[in-house]
Amino acid sequence: MSFPASEFRARAQRAQERMAQRGLGALLLTAEADLRYFSGFLTRFWESPCRPWFLVLPASGDPVAVIPSIGEAAMRRTWISDIRVWSAPDPEDDGIGLLADALREAGGPVGIPSGAGTHARMPLAGLRRAEGICGGPFAEDGGIVAALRAVKSPAEIEAVAEACAIAGRGFDRVSEIAAAGVPLSRVFRDFQRLLLEEGADWVSYLAGGAGPEGYADVISPADDAPLREGDVLMLDTGAVRAGYFCDYDRNFAVGAPTPAQQGAHARLVDAVGAGMEAARPGAAACEVWSAMAAIVGEGEAVGRMGHGFGMQLTEGPSLSPKDRTVLQPGMVIALEPAIRTAPGMMMVHEENVALTDAAPRVLSPLAGPEIAQVPGG
Amino acid sequence: MSFPASEFRARAQRAQERMAQRGLGALLLTAEADLRYFSGFLTRFWESPCRPWFLVLPASGDPVAVIPSIGEAAMRRTWISDIRVWSAPDPEDDGIGLLADALREAGGPVGIPSGAGTHARMPLAGLRRAEGICGGPFAEDGGIVAALRAVKSPAEIEAVAEACAIAGRGFDRVSEIAAAGVPLSRVFRDFQRLLLEEGADWVSYLAGGAGPEGYADVISPADDAPLREGDVLMLDTGAVRAGYFCDYDRNFAVGAPTPAQQGAHARLVDAVGAGMEAARPGAAACEVWSAMAAIVGEGEAVGRMGHGFGMQLTEGPSLSPKDRTVLQPGMVIALEPAIRTAPGMMMVHEENVALTDAAPRVLSPLAGPEIAQVPGG
Repeated sequence: MSFPASEFRARAQRAQERMAQRGLGALLLTAEADLRYFSGFLTRFWESPCRPWFLVLPASGDPVAVIPSIGEAAMRRTWISDIRVWSAPDPEDDGIGLLADALREAGGPVGIPSGAGTHARMPLAGLRRAEGICGGPFAEDGGIVAALRAVKSPAEIEAVAEACAIAGRGFDRVSEIAAAGVPLSRVFRDFQRLLLEEGADWVSYLAGGAGPEGYADVISPADDAPLREGDVLMLDTGAVRAGYFCDYDRNFAVGAPTPAQQGAHARLVDAVGAGMEAARPGAAACEVWSAMAAIVGEGEAVGRMGHGFGMQLTEGPSLSPKDRTVLQPGMVIALEPAIRTAPGMMMVHEENVALTDAAPRVLSPLAGPEIAQVPGG
Repeated sequence: MSFPASEFRARAQRAQERMAQRGLGALLLTAEADLRYFSGFLTRFWESPCRPWFLVLPASGDPVAVIPSIGEAAMRRTWISDIRVWSAPDPEDDGIGLLADALREAGGPVGIPSGAGTHARMPLAGLRRAEGICGGPFAEDGGIVAALRAVKSPAEIEAVAEACAIAGRGFDRVSEIAAAGVPLSRVFRDFQRLLLEEGADWVSYLAGGAGPEGYADVISPADDAPLREGDVLMLDTGAVRAGYFCDYDRNFAVGAPTPAQQGAHARLVDAVGAGMEAARPGAAACEVWSAMAAIVGEGEAVGRMGHGFGMQLTEGPSLSPKDRTVLQPGMVIALEPAIRTAPGMMMVHEENVALTDAAPRVLSPLAGPEIAQVPGG
């Protein structure tokens, strides 16, 4: 999956319209998803933090890439034509001089993504040096990039749908790999293998847990403890296809479910349904949270009951009490209610949808009201 | 693999000695590896950029974790006892108030990793707000954290050795999955599967390429083009075990190697050998680069011929002409010479070693002078 140049050009133009409203002369992008959003540049090399990468979007015209030479050949395969490289890492000047030149050509003020969920992926010393050369601190971008990225194009939604379908086929096969007696760490390895077999390019995220009353958290890697009959097993994955994530989980009873496990699952499924009903254009993100909290309560500790996603495992908006972002068609959302099952224990259920003018389009194969099972002892 | 509290306490004390020399009252850590280095907190949830995480190391005493509540249960399983949480994401105050309290308790000046290979993993607006509350811009940490992390403990070296051994077993099985006619994208999927089967917890990095004269770059994901007899295939992986990476590659001739492929491979292996001879405590990183460049030339475009690694796929120092870092026992290094094979094409070979008082300990199973093969047409 790669998008035509027209898609990237339209993204740049939409950003430039908003930059003009905000009086920005340039946008400076340093983070993977922001840079890829405007360029199409896809690599796993962001895993290496040793080199900064820059994309400068001027007030008019095409973006300028200022990047380490190791990425030149790959960047030449995108629609970007103005590509300036240096031999990085360079302890004397790691691209800052080249970057400052590009920013001065574009003209200020320079805006940089600064709000929730962002960070400047470059050394702070280099950022301050670039600001010094350019005449002072960069301005906040006012959420321009995040707002654009939050509303996906049809091509992006298809990419997420494909990632979700891959994970769905993987989840359908969990009983091949999970049963009482199998260590959780082995389940995690094998589930990633299933996702690759089903078409994931790579598996950037897998978390989960297992226990008779649920799990204490939803972000831990696996330990080597074997699954036991009576546990509920949760697997939550961000599998990637063509650079786009899915982000949803499934719960499985190990053997016959207990009434408490089945009851919690059914309530979580009801909550997702209520969230889906509430997730209409014009509603606020917090209203979707309220619809789910009305069913599962507010007592869980994860801070929200869903979020946007796409090129990242998680993006804004947050389905949380304080997020008043107005929902729009094209937003891709994980609905993720959590329920307190015992002191310090919880269950979480998650589904993925794309918002439309009417009811959301369901991207993950919806779980039914009966909790799934894997073999018990 | 998790380390005893004594290992983390010793790390904190070494940092505090250097903080005293530099006159720092606290260190602020925001990035995954820095936070894990001092806490042991391991999660793949850093893939979610929506929440910042903070660890404050005061001039004396134990670190303070200031983290989203979603991570509290997992952080309680580490040696950290002072854990302060908020319900994140919070659009009104996403942890900055709590963080500023912890920093003011510790007392200034506050140092933050700012040099090569670092970034502040938090919104720039939040960073500036925290600086404002604390009385002005944070100081640079002077490379304290990077220097400490560059010298691995015996337990860390064993963790890297295990990751390297896993990848070695995976590379030994490449002829099961790669042959003329197999699309490169399928080779990539299947190689990740092999790494999981051989014990990787997850595969954070895989890049590579294939072509009769090598590859145009070393950071691209796979395309769907089938391997052809006469190609050389390169796979470069960062497989993770217990939170520690390997980082090395292998080249494979598809069918019988051409004399050019075999010759380039043999020179690359010679260059690694020369790098290994030069990689002695007291030598400068640039001298190891020189030893390899004397054999393969300086004309490649990747900017360096190796680097440190460990909790990250890449870390300093860089084996590059300008890096004068003095090598020390305990550094874990990827030796990574590249050779220009044709205009715009190259081959790269990589091995992993740990520096000792004498010859380096080889962590990756060293490739021999004959290039490996996978089945041709």
